[in-house]
Formats: sequence, C-alpha cells, structure tokens
Amino acid sequence: MTRTTLKTALDVRLASRAGELKAPTAGLCPAHVQANLLIIPKKYAEDFRGLCKRNPVSCPLLGENIAHGNPQIDPSLAKDGDVTTDAPGYNVYLDGKPVAEDQLDCKEWWTEDSVAFLIGCSFTFEQALTDAGLMPRHQELGKNVPMYKSNIALFPSGIFSGNMVVSMRPYPLEDIERVRDITRPYIQAHGEPVAWGKDAAKRLGISDIYKPDFGDAPVLKEGEVPVFWGCGVTPQLVAMSSPDLKGIAIGHAPGKMLCLDLLIKDMDQ
Amino acid sequence: MTRTTLKTALDVRLASRAGELKAPTAGLCPAHVQANLLIIPKKYAEDFRGLCKRNPVSCPLLGENIAHGNPQIDPSLAKDGDVTTDAPGYNVYLDGKPVAEDQLDCKEWWTEDSVAFLIGCSFTFEQALTDAGLMPRHQELGKNVPMYKSNIALFPSGIFSGNMVVSMRPYPLEDIERVRDITRPYIQAHGEPVAWGKDAAKRLGISDIYKPDFGDAPVLKEGEVPVFWGCGVTPQLVAMSSPDLKGIAIGHAPGKMLCLDLLIKDMDQ
Repeated sequence: MTRTTLKTALDVRLASRAGELKAPTAGLCPAHVQANLLIIPKKYAEDFRGLCKRNPVSCPLLGENIAHGNPQIDPSLAKDGDVTTDAPGYNVYLDGKPVAEDQLDCKEWWTEDSVAFLIGCSFTFEQALTDAGLMPRHQELGKNVPMYKSNIALFPSGIFSGNMVVSMRPYPLEDIERVRDITRPYIQAHGEPVAWGKDAAKRLGISDIYKPDFGDAPVLKEGEVPVFWGCGVTPQLVAMSSPDLKGIAIGHAPGKMLCLDLLIKDMDQ
Repeated sequence: MTRTTLKTALDVRLASRAGELKAPTAGLCPAHVQANLLIIPKKYAEDFRGLCKRNPVSCPLLGENIAHGNPQIDPSLAKDGDVTTDAPGYNVYLDGKPVAEDQLDCKEWWTEDSVAFLIGCSFTFEQALTDAGLMPRHQELGKNVPMYKSNIALFPSGIFSGNMVVSMRPYPLEDIERVRDITRPYIQAHGEPVAWGKDAAKRLGISDIYKPDFGDAPVLKEGEVPVFWGCGVTPQLVAMSSPDLKGIAIGHAPGKMLCLDLLIKDMDQ
C-alpha cells in the first residue's frame, strides 16, 4: 500500500483498520468528507449536542451514532464503517486525563454506553484551495497541519466548557481574501478563517507559532502570515477541560481523521 | 390601551404600528416568540446569513424576508406583519453611522433593495424563568434589560465582523445551575448564559455593569452576581463595525422587539 493508492474513503478506512495507515489523512481521498471524532458516555450526549449547536465553527456536527454498543457508522455516511477502528490513530482519556495516545484502534474502550460524534474537518476544503493554486504548506511538505490551543472560550453547554483549538495554514496577505472566499462555503468544515495577520497569533493567545500543541511545526516563507481556522480537535480539549465529564472519552489522534463516503460536493453548505 | 391588554403578538404589533406602544416588549405576549431585526441591502444577505450560521449564540436566525420591496413578514411567523412598522422603535444607520434613533417606523428607509432578518431574542425564555420563580429583575422593576458591548469577537463572515453584545440578569450564585437548565433548551433564543459570576464582567471587557451600553442600569441585591446571555442587538454593532457595509442598515431599538405569532412551544430547540 502506498498513500497514492488511497483514493476513496473506503480505501483509507480499510488501510487504517488493517493498521497499514498510521499517518495523517490530509490529502487522501480528496473528493470525500473527513471527520473528527469524539466518543463519550451516553449520558453526556445531549449536553455535547448543545455544545456543537452553540459552537459550530469549531464543532460542526456531521452525525452521531447512538445505537447502544454498536460502533457502526451511519451507512449513509460510511458503508461498513466502524468508529473504533477506521481512523489511523486514537487518543483515550479517563476522567479528562490522557491514558493512551495514538492507538491503532479503541475497541477495548468502547462500551454499550458509548456514543460517537462525527465533526467536520478543515481537510475537507484543502482540495478546493489546492485546485485554486493555494495548496496548504503542510500538504506540500507531507507534514501534519499545525494546531494550537487558543484563548477563545467556547460557549458552555451543560457540563461542557473549554477553549477552541485552531489549525494554521500560512499565506501571503494578498491571497487572504481569495482563501476566505474559497473556504467560506464549507460551513460544515469550519468555513472561512477565524483570524489572520501578523498579530493574529498574539490575539489568540498563541505564544509561539513554531511550537504547535498538536501536529507539526509550520514553515512560513517571507511575506506570509498565519491564517487560523476552527479545528475539530477542540472536543478533545473540551474532554480535558470539563471537570464533570467522568469516565472514558476517546478522540482521533490529531490529523488522523475518519474518512466518510459522503462526497464534499454533497455536503450541507 | 394598557400594557396588560397586549396579550398576543398581534396586539403588540398593532399597538406598535399605531404608535401607541413605544416601550420595551419584555413581558408582553408571553407565549409568543420575540425577534430582533436587521435590515440591510440585499447584496450583503449571503454574508449575513453566514455570520448567523457561524455565530448562532448571538445571531440565531429565525427567518428572513427577501421579496424585493416587500416588507411583509413571512405569514407563518406573523400574519399581516410588517417589518417597517411593527416594532415599537427603530434605529437607522448610514454607512455604519447612526442617523436616526428610536423611530416609530422605518418606512422611509425601506427600499426595493432591502432584506430583513429576524433573529431570536432572550425575552423568549423569560416567561419560563418567571414560571420557575426566577423572574428577571428588569421585569420586576418594569425596566429595559441592560445590554453591553463585550470583547468577544464574532467569527467573521465576508464583509461582516464585530463584537458580541450581551444582556444581563442578576441571580444568586446558588440559582445559576437552575437558570442554566431552564434557558438551555431555547437554542434559537440565545440558549443558556455565556458567562456568569463575580469576575464575568471583567472577562467580557465590561468596565461598569451599572453603565450599560443599551437599556436601563441594573439593580443587584446582596449575594447576586451578573449572568450574561447572547443578545440580538449584536447585528447592530456589526452594522457599525463592518467598514465595507455601505448604505442603509436598520435595527429595532434595543429591547423593542418584533413580536411573532410563532408560539414559543413550537420553536426549534
């Protein structure tokens, strides 16, 4: 298997399930929607749904799986998909503290009481940027996108609170209006940027853009400024920041997405 | 006409249209949904729709009127309703600067090119608070709710950007979880609070809660803390903060809402 053979979402899911794909999914199956994942105990589902409704820029809800004990993804989103095996990596939290990182699957932590939420991902709009001659730098370099904890507080919902995680792609200032226009329609994949420019990192409380909290360090060329988008790693920060969330929470490893059969062109805008 | 005769939304609209009701609408027609208003030139409609989708806590979109030159409200929301006459007061902006305040109607500024957006309002959940023995203080006192410009930046959408306006109701700390629970389901009316507690005003960049930017100064009793909600006056601040918004923008006068036939019990949650 090479990365270039992973053209469909099913290819990516099967390679992830087999343990053959352990890398970030940016650039894979470019016609398909990619999703962030959060698995929590069912009793918190209603509060988490509310968190997504109130914070759709970081947490655009694509679907959920509430069949007791059944990790199968809604077939309209992914045929024969399994939330516990089909992402290339999983992080596991107990009572908000990390207990296992970048696991190949999360089967041993899935229970009858688990509910899985699928959340839109900015990789979904990267092909549109590439088609316009604006390929994201991390894709050029074959690296993971840099992601940062920001100072933007989410609007709380029940037990859930926390700050927003943002992803970053550098662009020259003169390209930013085009970048905004291209990504704006992808409202279920974080949409247009939340902040950009020389002082944007400072405004977001990011002290050093070369030291991301998740993903790989970025490379900026002269004249480029950081451009920040909402990021679906946010729910994992929420799982770590909400003291009343007890028990097991599971997220995908940052950048290692669940790839859906759903085509980008058929997504809600 | 006395305030106590205004039991239905139609009563309120007709009294506003006749110029008999010039006061805030909190507490009137308590079974009905109340709405904030923003009227802008049609070419900005798509960007504004995006702003609402990205910022649903301050800008929950209830409906819009895009018939050219027709100020009639969608009859499913308000029978024979007219956006230009049926709120008790209107503010008018030209190129982002206020040009007329608290007008009885805005007919002379409505054009063929106008589009009106109706946005959920926190007055909608006040009856539920009252029914639970938690009547908002401003209603007890027959005053307008205090509203403040905050430091929370909206997520930009096209030409629109700006900061969030918040409304405030004081409660004792021990009541806050009940207040959160009661208002949480009203997701189209700003939902649960965005911040509360002794230091909440400071965190939101509000220097003096006794000097609101809109509405009347609050009265806090000993042991009470401020509780802040999203507020549909936000779009008016956006109209003043978005330099690329040219032409006429019109909002309701803060606290003076458009009352809809739509019943609160039939609202999306």
